[in-house]
Amino acid sequence: MDDRDNERVRIGIVGCAEIARKLCRVIALTPNAVLQAVGSRSLDKAKFFAAENGLSSTGVRLYGSYKEIVEDPSVDAVYLPLPTSLHVQWAVAAARHKKHVLLEKPVALDTTQLDQILEACSSNGVQFMDGTMWLHHPRTLSMRKLISNPQLFGYLDYVYSSSTFCAPPEFLESNIRVKPDLDSLGALGDLGWYSIGSILWAVGYELPVSVMALPQVTCNSAGVILACSASLFWDRSPGCQEPTEPASATRRTVATFHCSFMAHMSMDLTIIGSNGSIHVKDLAIPFEENSASYEFTPLAKFVDLHIGWSAKPERTGILSEIPQEALMVQEFASLVRDIKRKGLPPESKWPEISRKTQLVLDAVKKSIDLGYSPVYL
Amino acid sequence: MDDRDNERVRIGIVGCAEIARKLCRVIALTPNAVLQAVGSRSLDKAKFFAAENGLSSTGVRLYGSYKEIVEDPSVDAVYLPLPTSLHVQWAVAAARHKKHVLLEKPVALDTTQLDQILEACSSNGVQFMDGTMWLHHPRTLSMRKLISNPQLFGYLDYVYSSSTFCAPPEFLESNIRVKPDLDSLGALGDLGWYSIGSILWAVGYELPVSVMALPQVTCNSAGVILACSASLFWDRSPGCQEPTEPASATRRTVATFHCSFMAHMSMDLTIIGSNGSIHVKDLAIPFEENSASYEFTPLAKFVDLHIGWSAKPERTGILSEIPQEALMVQEFASLVRDIKRKGLPPESKWPEISRKTQLVLDAVKKSIDLGYSPVYL
Repeated sequence: MDDRDNERVRIGIVGCAEIARKLCRVIALTPNAVLQAVGSRSLDKAKFFAAENGLSSTGVRLYGSYKEIVEDPSVDAVYLPLPTSLHVQWAVAAARHKKHVLLEKPVALDTTQLDQILEACSSNGVQFMDGTMWLHHPRTLSMRKLISNPQLFGYLDYVYSSSTFCAPPEFLESNIRVKPDLDSLGALGDLGWYSIGSILWAVGYELPVSVMALPQVTCNSAGVILACSASLFWDRSPGCQEPTEPASATRRTVATFHCSFMAHMSMDLTIIGSNGSIHVKDLAIPFEENSASYEFTPLAKFVDLHIGWSAKPERTGILSEIPQEALMVQEFASLVRDIKRKGLPPESKWPEISRKTQLVLDAVKKSIDLGYSPVYL
Repeated sequence: MDDRDNERVRIGIVGCAEIARKLCRVIALTPNAVLQAVGSRSLDKAKFFAAENGLSSTGVRLYGSYKEIVEDPSVDAVYLPLPTSLHVQWAVAAARHKKHVLLEKPVALDTTQLDQILEACSSNGVQFMDGTMWLHHPRTLSMRKLISNPQLFGYLDYVYSSSTFCAPPEFLESNIRVKPDLDSLGALGDLGWYSIGSILWAVGYELPVSVMALPQVTCNSAGVILACSASLFWDRSPGCQEPTEPASATRRTVATFHCSFMAHMSMDLTIIGSNGSIHVKDLAIPFEENSASYEFTPLAKFVDLHIGWSAKPERTGILSEIPQEALMVQEFASLVRDIKRKGLPPESKWPEISRKTQLVLDAVKKSIDLGYSPVYL
């Protein structure tokens, strides 16, 4: 038996959603993971998925139920791309069977549900990670270095994020992501997750003091959100030492996001500091798979007569040898292996990030339900 | 006497503010205008300005008071770069002396004041235009063509605008633009003017249904705004025919802007339609004087497996033979000449744009004063 094979984390995919194809492909590109099993609601669906994704002649086990795959002792970890309303049931079941959990976003319908999942993972000593892929792209690390540099970036003033795509009319009424019994958070869950997550990332995961949804949310006939916007407020600039001049006593950070199933594709993240600003246009899914870029404008001033800028945006290109979702699986598998082989405790960073994102998402939903009132966290 | 000289509109600059240097320079680049006079609070100041700007050996008349220059019968039109609190007095005085008025932004402290100015201009048959330069850049026209195209752009979903620069500490307490007796609107007037104007431009100047300032405005010790944000709401997508699918019955447009004297320089305008999106990073003052660009992303979809985009932003570069402020003076002078020579009435478009911008600015200010309540227009 090959020692390297022995070390690979054996992953089971629970549910054959469209996005499962994406993960299925990259598990093969990930050196420390291997696809062990695929489970669907019926064996026919699992077989169809296997055939469609070139798994037929591999040794991948196929199951006609979610129960069988989460109980399979040869499976180390599960990837759950199920509708959000099924997450608690199957993530908890997997954790109880000592499976590490890679859970698609949005992770839960609310923080109460997420806490059930996190408690099950914690008490069973298994790793939890949500499926936010862009956090694992090397571009994200490169931008983090920039905004952590007080000289280059300064304190954080404003964040703008958009997460939109233009879904066809039939999607808006009948897709899983807009069905009240399957994904009742609609665009706020599916797309707002990225925006909220990117804003929290920008502020170093300091929770806002308050959150306010902006009026005029758009819903479909079942009342599921198709488009909404919200703002997040901090009463000081997070993570940065305050300068000493008088006006700075009240330096504050504001963030605004817009998410919509009814607008042209956009994945903007704009972060304005006191000394520089960052612009990204393809945060959640880069334009191209193996490279991505961002623009940083450092210390720009007006030139004399205010007829131009002293500095222009500088583009930084970042190559990614394997796709961001493979890097996510690699990181997840690496943590799982450390738990299995070294007896290390699960990494708490990932569930903490998910929980903060969910807390803010809940607050936005509550603000909408309260008629766009501010909600304090 | 040269016929061409005879046709040139003779402009008087009233007040020697920093920005007057910029206009002084470009009047010389404008084929249909000529600098006729400069007036300041003292003759010494006017002389100093003339020396500093290479006017000493020209025939430009110098005045030691605003009164003398607005009464000079050889002056056809005035450019007023005075502190906002002085606009009513001197714009009205100029109009009563039949001078056409090019008025720096923000045009007034509120719409009541602006209406006094516009009434004086209207009843004296003189042209009014505010000093928003970017509206005259050929880039603006090029973007207008794009967003007016239903196939390329579709209906308007969201607009984001930022107008920020990082002023030194002494500016935040003592500059004209943050003095309660001179420019009491602070950053909302100086920078919010650009953001509000660009949002209104994007929606084709349809006024929003409501406006709401976002919490946590930052003020200096005199209570003048140093940083604020606001959102504007339309209960349908302006200027576009509504599609017929059910969800579209509630398609709405939202815009958000942020303005600040305490953040790195940014002049973002992002316009997201249903079919395409536009990104500009240097709207109010292009990075370079003689060229500017914008990015348009047309009809982007996910590629298979959602591992990239089917279309990337396309950059369009626009050359400007003369600077945007010269194009503004040229347009203003052209209207003035038509009034003088052909007896045409003043062009109503420009005062209408200024008035709508001021109306929204007033609503944002009112929302702040009411504790961030929505204000209906």
